[in-house]
Amino acid sequence: MESLMIYMPIAMAILGLIFMLVKQSWVMKQNPGDGKMKEISDHIYEGALAFLKAEYKLLAIFVVIVSVLLAIVSFVVPTTHILIVVAFIFGAFFSAFAGNIGMKIATKTNVRTTQAARTSLPNALKVSFGGGTVMGLGVAGLAVLGLTTFFIGFFYFFMDSTWAAQVINGRNYSPTELMTVVLETLAGFSLGAESIALFARVGGGIYTKAADVGADLVGKVEAGIPEDDPRNPATIADNVGDNVGDVAGMGADLFGSYVATVLAAMVLGNYVIKDMGGDISEFGFGGIGPILLPMAIAGVGIIISIIGTLLVKIKSNDAKEDQVMSALNIGNWTSIVLVAVSCFGLCHYMLPETMQMRFFGLVEPVEISSMRVFYATLVGLVVGATISSVTEYYTGLGKKPVLKIVQQSSTGAGTNIIAGLATGMMSTFPSVLLFAGAIWGSYAFAGFYGVALAASAMMATTAMQLAIDAFGPISDNAGGIAEMSEQEPIVRERTDILDTVGNTTAATGKGFAIASAALTSLALFAAYVTFTGIDGINIFKAPVLAMLFVGGMVPVVFSALAMNAVGKAAMEMVQEVRRQFKEIPGIMEGTGKPEYDKCVAISTEASLREMILPGLLTICFPLAIAFLPMLFGMDPLAIAEMLGGYMAGVTVSGVLWAIFQNNAGGAWDNAKKSFEAGVIINGEMTYKGSEAHKAAVTGDTVGDPFKDTSGPSMNILIKLTCLIGLVIAPILGGHSLEEGMAVSQTNAEAVVVRTISTETDADGIITNSAEAKVTTTTQNNGQTVIVEKLFKGTLEEVTEASSAYAKAQKE
Amino acid sequence: MESLMIYMPIAMAILGLIFMLVKQSWVMKQNPGDGKMKEISDHIYEGALAFLKAEYKLLAIFVVIVSVLLAIVSFVVPTTHILIVVAFIFGAFFSAFAGNIGMKIATKTNVRTTQAARTSLPNALKVSFGGGTVMGLGVAGLAVLGLTTFFIGFFYFFMDSTWAAQVINGRNYSPTELMTVVLETLAGFSLGAESIALFARVGGGIYTKAADVGADLVGKVEAGIPEDDPRNPATIADNVGDNVGDVAGMGADLFGSYVATVLAAMVLGNYVIKDMGGDISEFGFGGIGPILLPMAIAGVGIIISIIGTLLVKIKSNDAKEDQVMSALNIGNWTSIVLVAVSCFGLCHYMLPETMQMRFFGLVEPVEISSMRVFYATLVGLVVGATISSVTEYYTGLGKKPVLKIVQQSSTGAGTNIIAGLATGMMSTFPSVLLFAGAIWGSYAFAGFYGVALAASAMMATTAMQLAIDAFGPISDNAGGIAEMSEQEPIVRERTDILDTVGNTTAATGKGFAIASAALTSLALFAAYVTFTGIDGINIFKAPVLAMLFVGGMVPVVFSALAMNAVGKAAMEMVQEVRRQFKEIPGIMEGTGKPEYDKCVAISTEASLREMILPGLLTICFPLAIAFLPMLFGMDPLAIAEMLGGYMAGVTVSGVLWAIFQNNAGGAWDNAKKSFEAGVIINGEMTYKGSEAHKAAVTGDTVGDPFKDTSGPSMNILIKLTCLIGLVIAPILGGHSLEEGMAVSQTNAEAVVVRTISTETDADGIITNSAEAKVTTTTQNNGQTVIVEKLFKGTLEEVTEASSAYAKAQKE
Repeated sequence: MESLMIYMPIAMAILGLIFMLVKQSWVMKQNPGDGKMKEISDHIYEGALAFLKAEYKLLAIFVVIVSVLLAIVSFVVPTTHILIVVAFIFGAFFSAFAGNIGMKIATKTNVRTTQAARTSLPNALKVSFGGGTVMGLGVAGLAVLGLTTFFIGFFYFFMDSTWAAQVINGRNYSPTELMTVVLETLAGFSLGAESIALFARVGGGIYTKAADVGADLVGKVEAGIPEDDPRNPATIADNVGDNVGDVAGMGADLFGSYVATVLAAMVLGNYVIKDMGGDISEFGFGGIGPILLPMAIAGVGIIISIIGTLLVKIKSNDAKEDQVMSALNIGNWTSIVLVAVSCFGLCHYMLPETMQMRFFGLVEPVEISSMRVFYATLVGLVVGATISSVTEYYTGLGKKPVLKIVQQSSTGAGTNIIAGLATGMMSTFPSVLLFAGAIWGSYAFAGFYGVALAASAMMATTAMQLAIDAFGPISDNAGGIAEMSEQEPIVRERTDILDTVGNTTAATGKGFAIASAALTSLALFAAYVTFTGIDGINIFKAPVLAMLFVGGMVPVVFSALAMNAVGKAAMEMVQEVRRQFKEIPGIMEGTGKPEYDKCVAISTEASLREMILPGLLTICFPLAIAFLPMLFGMDPLAIAEMLGGYMAGVTVSGVLWAIFQNNAGGAWDNAKKSFEAGVIINGEMTYKGSEAHKAAVTGDTVGDPFKDTSGPSMNILIKLTCLIGLVIAPILGGHSLEEGMAVSQTNAEAVVVRTISTETDADGIITNSAEAKVTTTTQNNGQTVIVEKLFKGTLEEVTEASSAYAKAQKE
Repeated sequence: MESLMIYMPIAMAILGLIFMLVKQSWVMKQNPGDGKMKEISDHIYEGALAFLKAEYKLLAIFVVIVSVLLAIVSFVVPTTHILIVVAFIFGAFFSAFAGNIGMKIATKTNVRTTQAARTSLPNALKVSFGGGTVMGLGVAGLAVLGLTTFFIGFFYFFMDSTWAAQVINGRNYSPTELMTVVLETLAGFSLGAESIALFARVGGGIYTKAADVGADLVGKVEAGIPEDDPRNPATIADNVGDNVGDVAGMGADLFGSYVATVLAAMVLGNYVIKDMGGDISEFGFGGIGPILLPMAIAGVGIIISIIGTLLVKIKSNDAKEDQVMSALNIGNWTSIVLVAVSCFGLCHYMLPETMQMRFFGLVEPVEISSMRVFYATLVGLVVGATISSVTEYYTGLGKKPVLKIVQQSSTGAGTNIIAGLATGMMSTFPSVLLFAGAIWGSYAFAGFYGVALAASAMMATTAMQLAIDAFGPISDNAGGIAEMSEQEPIVRERTDILDTVGNTTAATGKGFAIASAALTSLALFAAYVTFTGIDGINIFKAPVLAMLFVGGMVPVVFSALAMNAVGKAAMEMVQEVRRQFKEIPGIMEGTGKPEYDKCVAISTEASLREMILPGLLTICFPLAIAFLPMLFGMDPLAIAEMLGGYMAGVTVSGVLWAIFQNNAGGAWDNAKKSFEAGVIINGEMTYKGSEAHKAAVTGDTVGDPFKDTSGPSMNILIKLTCLIGLVIAPILGGHSLEEGMAVSQTNAEAVVVRTISTETDADGIITNSAEAKVTTTTQNNGQTVIVEKLFKGTLEEVTEASSAYAKAQKE
């Protein structure tokens, strides 16, 4: 049983994928409606395919280039194995495939939701949420399946699936070292997944806003046709954009976080085993319990998510937003509680009752019970739930911050913008305190392994989170189709209820995504430091401090590039739409068919091209920091420390700018939406079309790229930065095969420093008071741990005690 | 001669102040005009006095509270001397006095500039720049005078003005320890100065924008009277605001930077002496050359600034902006070159030809020639000059970024805002790379002493920079007075030329201020780490990392609070103006006199009250981080490291947000101003009043609090944070009187780790290749320095070489 645990996550993933296929076929069997409905839906589907086609073309080039680079690295650097290329390609492929599933089901579900809404609201929710479930399970199932399969494969290839030392080329390798190679190679899978996320999230973010703005500028403003009018060639691109950004982008983002989190936790689990003496086979699970645990949590999380999705249903056809929201909440909270319960069980079952972990700065390993690891997972679950509430407060309709922005709209766009910016900035306060508390808390419970497991537990419900998240844009699309195909008002009313709830879940989903990205980056950061074996990251060294500054700057510049990219891409879209209006005969009369796919292609290509510069910024900066100083002969460990400073700078600044931009954008959006139902400003009811509403629309224009392009891109930036660091870590030194023998050697030396002061008291009696400091330095696997112990008392006492202690330490 | 060098800076400061008095009396002797001109000017002067009165009241309370707190600390903590209270009070007083001089001369010079502009442009420049010169020399003279006097006083009090060990209460204190106490006490002066800067810069920033917005909203919008109309009770407040923000705020900011920079350089100079064995009396200057050097540079800088100001003149009455600008440039560049020359001389003269400096992470001290210190000062001068060019590029009229914002204004306020935000964000790229390069470069030349001296050299021309900076708002006021008193158009034309140049210098001045704040903070940060004697700041410790996050968040929240404060204070102003319009009979007809002082007082009180929350945020966060964990019994050195992480977070994030907000605001401002001369948008000339112009006005509304309130406040936030850290450093441990004896004790131990690998080549020959790592650990004054040396070769070679090396190290 115990040794079978390694296959458990695969079984769960396959179960999840089977459930996904069942759900998929159920959704596809639903009535897709008729006539105009079907036509519009087909256009969106076609557009989505066009986007995927263009994306895959560029992706293929990218994957080939990176594969060649990785292959070269693996030939030059003896510690990097060529299999990393295979892992990279499959990571990219799995992520792209998951995105494909999500895009297809989302563009098939939208029209079926419209059709279902013609019968009843419960049916509409069932169909739209069913589509979201397919998306969620596709992402989570493929992520766990891919990662686990490759782990098992590499575990077999490098270690014969056994935790034992091996002699290779006459040199003895400890199992910890061999596992390090396994996990370093596995990092390729994560890198592949995150690279796709770069395309999907950043490119998708540019796409969705470029299409949105482009469609509006020519359609609404120049041609005077309504929004979502099928005569506008960019309308389909606009609707495709919703799916590209909110479905595929979010999916790829969470796919990447999911994989990276589990990977980082496995890396740190390997060091837990090492800290315990390098062999814990006596505790079962093939001696790799701490490494398997994060995968097991992910596997169980899939089943829990399925249970959660099954709970999401409403009965009454007269339900309102509140009932729909609470249906989602029941599913969500149940899954979170179930994850907590299963974390308790899994930590208890898979980990030794007490472990020894080495904490940075302490020479003695600390006894950590398996329950403390469980507490760390609870920290992650609490953060995941709380960050959603924080996001909800700062961006929610009817909440104080949004109401304030509404009030400030009455004095014009300027004050509206100031209020929105200030709201986004203020929202960093509770969010960062929450993150800081989570870092501290989970670390205090179980070191950086605890931090990584906190992230793993939070990510366990990824499938459920994505289902909740993806159902929003599906409902949004369904509403658009209802409007365009001129359904009964009741249909639109029903989809509007779903859409409104979807807007809330979209905002909280962004909170979840940034929380996951932040914790993932921290876990990767910890894995990086442990991999390279550097003596921590000391910002009192000027080059490290300089890199902290540079790292802090990159998210800001990245955001600027992303915002400018939206502007440029939108302008190209405008020109294409103008051209079609001019050149296609009968287009305005509805007799000529607009070339939707050309529009989509232009938007796709522009967005993918515009993401290259920010993408290069993300990829090239860490590479330049790693390799440029190497050319000048700088010590690799010093470079590793600089790169660590850079990673910390990117993470801290990136998290701040993500929260700031996401929440400012969300708040502006809902401030604008507040006018739809009417708001009271200075005692008067104010509606759409008022001056205040126009000011709010301006705020929303600014907020759009904030919340849909640059803000969410920060997640990818910080994760990819830390992943690149992790992948090049073996080049920079530390725990590689070359220097492996030093791994378990420990030396302790004691140094005594004595401080004596002589004091004369009022009675003239002289007291010799003395102090001795015993410094114990331990060289542990390249890491230097220093412990200082102070002795105080009379000269005699201190001399005796300190000498005895120092002697004991030396032995 | 050599021992007299300690008095040189005082002599220079007094010379500077005498020159200031001469210049002041010359300005005051100029014709103040007549009738309406004089009346308006008197109102502004009255308003400025009202502000000062209210400010001093609040300041007095603040100074008393902090003094009591400091006094309590000095009684409880044996290492803090009660004299720090005296230094604090005088620091606050000197800074306030300098602000007083600046405000008074600025509000007296404005009308005289208007009058001079009636005769000729050269005269107008002479008068307005004369006023600026008084301001600059007042700040620089008082800063150097105060700091140097207190240093000499404390040097006498604690050390009998001699570099020698002393026995106090039966215990022997090294001169380095005694000097540490001198400089810790002197830090009180810097803290006092920076506290005033908090009031002047943050309060002033809120004031100026609150008055601006308040005056506009009721005057222009509600009452329909033109801008700067004397019937508007808030007009005077508006004009006072220009002086409060741009003159007094900037003056206090640079006063604080100036003092803090010199202080930090002195602290680090003390450790240079220690690194050289603790006594360099043989090199003259009483053995404190490296400590005196930064003061000497500051002193010489005053004289150089006087020379620079004398060069600023134009001859032709038909001169345009370019000629005025180049007149300023000649003065500025001459003074920078002269500072470089004198730094060469002073470094050569005052420093030993070669020094030993300990670099963090290296066990052996490094030989640093005095010329390398000179190179470090050059780095500072280059940064000061370059950052101005960068700022000028991103915010300058006619430059690409501003032109782009102008173009984006054609599609509405939304795109204008996005373009402005993106510009501000992009501008962090060259700025941060420049700072990072400066940190790295000056550190590589001469360690953190080099970083501090780079900052000192940059700040040497403070008087000149302030003169250039203060002449802008003076000319702005002069133009307003010309307009209100209905002068000939030529008068306004002339003042407009000066005003336009003043706008450019205001933007570049902000660049200089943030560069100085950044370098000052880094120097303070280095002084802090050295003071506390912690083993660097390692962000791989989770609590330190958590504090880095929290520190990064504080500038963002501070900015939000500052922006909200502007909104609140403006609303109070609006209500007061409405009340006066209603209650004072004949006010609109010009027969009833508006109660300017009430308006000014309301605005003053509101601004000072609104700055309390961000002020508390600034002060309380570091205190909470230092003292809360202490209550829970956490190790002081661990707390010191956490606080260091917090300081780094605040500095990195604060610098980024300062650059972002200053430059975005500056760019929006000039984008709006571009419409005054007309701009070509889509092939059409577009002027004021167009839709595009309205969009640009909205951008400027957002930019106003960015560039005048929250942006510049960042300077104070980061400096004050680091200063608070420095002041509480003795409480957190390290180099205090208590543990002083350990200072010069060094122990070295070598640890040998051997790695052997056996390889069999193609011919079956077995080679034993071996590696040995010798780790030398040196305990130096609480700081642990570790050096690792690798040996590679055959087993025999390696064993021999490493043993010999280890033995040598042990001895």
